[in-house]
Amino acid sequence: MADSDASRVLLSVSGFSPRRWHELLSAGREVVMDADGSADPSVAYAVVWKHPHGALRNLPNLRGIFSIGAGVDHIMADPDLPDVPVVRVVDPNLTQHMVEYVVWRVLDHHRQGALYRAQQGRKVWHEVGQRTAGDVSVGIMGLGQLGRAAAEALNGLGFTVNGWSRTPREVANVHTYSGESGLVPFLNATDILTVLLPLTPTTQGIIDYALLKELRRRNALGGAVLINAGRGQLQRDADILRALDDNTLKEASLDVFEQEPLPADSPLWLHPRLIITPHAAATSDPNHLVGPMLEGMEQLDRGEMPENVVDRSAGY
Amino acid sequence: MADSDASRVLLSVSGFSPRRWHELLSAGREVVMDADGSADPSVAYAVVWKHPHGALRNLPNLRGIFSIGAGVDHIMADPDLPDVPVVRVVDPNLTQHMVEYVVWRVLDHHRQGALYRAQQGRKVWHEVGQRTAGDVSVGIMGLGQLGRAAAEALNGLGFTVNGWSRTPREVANVHTYSGESGLVPFLNATDILTVLLPLTPTTQGIIDYALLKELRRRNALGGAVLINAGRGQLQRDADILRALDDNTLKEASLDVFEQEPLPADSPLWLHPRLIITPHAAATSDPNHLVGPMLEGMEQLDRGEMPENVVDRSAGY
Ligand SMILES: NC(=O)c1ccc[n+]([C@@H]2O[C@H](COP(=O)([O-])OP(=O)(O)OC[C@H]3O[C@@H](n4cnc5c(N)ncnc54)[C@H](OP(=O)(O)O)[C@@H]3O)[C@@H](O)[C@H]2O)c1
Ligand SMILES: NC(=O)c1ccc[n+]([C@@H]2O[C@H](COP(=O)([O-])OP(=O)(O)OC[C@H]3O[C@@H](n4cnc5c(N)ncnc54)[C@H](OP(=O)(O)O)[C@@H]3O)[C@@H](O)[C@H]2O)c1
Repeated sequence: MADSDASRVLLSVSGFSPRRWHELLSAGREVVMDADGSADPSVAYAVVWKHPHGALRNLPNLRGIFSIGAGVDHIMADPDLPDVPVVRVVDPNLTQHMVEYVVWRVLDHHRQGALYRAQQGRKVWHEVGQRTAGDVSVGIMGLGQLGRAAAEALNGLGFTVNGWSRTPREVANVHTYSGESGLVPFLNATDILTVLLPLTPTTQGIIDYALLKELRRRNALGGAVLINAGRGQLQRDADILRALDDNTLKEASLDVFEQEPLPADSPLWLHPRLIITPHAAATSDPNHLVGPMLEGMEQLDRGEMPENVVDRSAGY
Repeated sequence: MADSDASRVLLSVSGFSPRRWHELLSAGREVVMDADGSADPSVAYAVVWKHPHGALRNLPNLRGIFSIGAGVDHIMADPDLPDVPVVRVVDPNLTQHMVEYVVWRVLDHHRQGALYRAQQGRKVWHEVGQRTAGDVSVGIMGLGQLGRAAAEALNGLGFTVNGWSRTPREVANVHTYSGESGLVPFLNATDILTVLLPLTPTTQGIIDYALLKELRRRNALGGAVLINAGRGQLQRDADILRALDDNTLKEASLDVFEQEPLPADSPLWLHPRLIITPHAAATSDPNHLVGPMLEGMEQLDRGEMPENVVDRSAGY
């Protein structure tokens, strides 16, 4: 079979039902579901979320891989990844969900939600001092699609916003820092650290005890706060627990964990100053994403490069 | 003593310590604290929060009353209220705090905070469907200083916003309704009802079971939500409880109650779908408010009218 005749889509998903993805992709392309690594010259594209590594190896006519998520760490970690463009998700609806999550978590820490809920549980009527958003700085690690949108929303609500990225970035009304040398100054100016980094060999395990120690402690909130909605492997769960227990961190919100689902025996589950969500900050919605994916496939068919192709050397 | 010689300020506060108010007012005027209703020709202004009714009756040279709060219901309810201008609080810092409170509570309901916290308590890792802000409408009762600012912030985050006021109002990107005839259409289009009304004879008890029944039930959130940060007497506590218990309301956030502090035997305290804060949404901060008050007094001394004088016929 010649390259140009291959047109089918291999859909390989784990962790959730691919039913709706299958349905919507089928409206545009023939879809196959066996991702067992067997040779299939009819497959032109793969649409994947946590595919079995090696499964894309024997697709001689593969022209592109579409990630179902904004993060492509699981794809990039496949040692048998074919050398074709990897296209990731950039979608206003997904960005909107992440902005909602981040603002929700920032405000809950800022407005002392945990404290007021605990007081309610003890029927205590007691008002505590409340700082103004402008006196609190939120530092965003990762100034990409999601980090920039979160920064803008937090700015709009009056928070002071810092940002950190790999390469220097200018974002309106955000104090930006970059690279290794910018990290400590960024942390020293940050009360609420919000992690929206991609997982790469460079960022793996970056949120450790030493990093959390650099956060601003003398601050309007009475302690430092961590929010991670990037990837669990960016953090060391045990270090976060230690930081909570010795008050290096006042509180935290985690949407992601080293191991997911979070194991039942993890001491994180019942920590009173930690809010856990089950990797639900911003879910990929096939109703919003399949259309652009099918368009991307047509672009590749025509020999054009779609937007949002991953930079293989950077890993995101 | 002639009118123009009177210059002292009567400070009458209950429910919190007036120390800081006294300190700051004293920088500009001599302050007296006895609000026992005795005659005092030296007093030109009163600065009050829940003063004993009748206490302002015998001040022959009183030229103005300054409310420490944005709401003046307790002042207007004084049967012995002297016929002088009543000036209320309008302050960007107070408005900012209210906006933070409202956005915090709206997002916590929208993002299913109560459900995720309950799941965490049972170590349950389970993602539930998440709607987008644009699919959810927040209806704001009261499009004054606070309501308009909250509407703008919620709009900025992508929510659909409705508003209801006494007189017709136009607010950018807000579907506005007004008067008695506008109330039911407003409620029918609203998922999250946010109350920022003043307490007046007309608004007293307005948030009752019948009103809550009119909220949109077939909606993106899976139920209607009430947030009250206006005044407790706007609502019937028992009706809210009934509405929560028969799922007329899915959830509620209350900052104010018919009786404050909320009595220990109130069944509201431990309701699993209700979030209670102790009238802490937006506290008057003397550091921000005393300066404008002293300026207002100087204006009245000169025979000028300050901004934000209450309309006695409307009651707010
Ligand atoms: N929890 C959830 O539900 C959920 C949902 C969606 C996405 N996510 C996660 O969010 C991540 C970010 O998404 P995005 O679309 O915003 O990504 P993006 O547009 O690729 O932006 C990534 C940002 O991180 C910065 N960065 C990368 N490596 C860095 C390093 N070594 N040091 C400093 N900064 C570094 C980049 O710097 P430059 O600007 O210099 O390139 C960029 O600003 C995704 O990778 C995914 O893991 C989670
Ligand atoms: N919980 C807290 O910590 C806290 C803090 C501060 C304030 N508050 C409360 O918030 C209230 C609102 O403050 P604000 O500064 O926004 O007041 P405002 O500027 O006076 O605005 C009041 C709004 O309510 C509307 N309204 C009044 N009576 C009405 C009626 N019968 N029917 C329909 N709409 C009516 C007004 O309509 P028009 O536009 O037609 O005049 C106006 O839009 C205060 O009165 C106070 O009780 C609570």
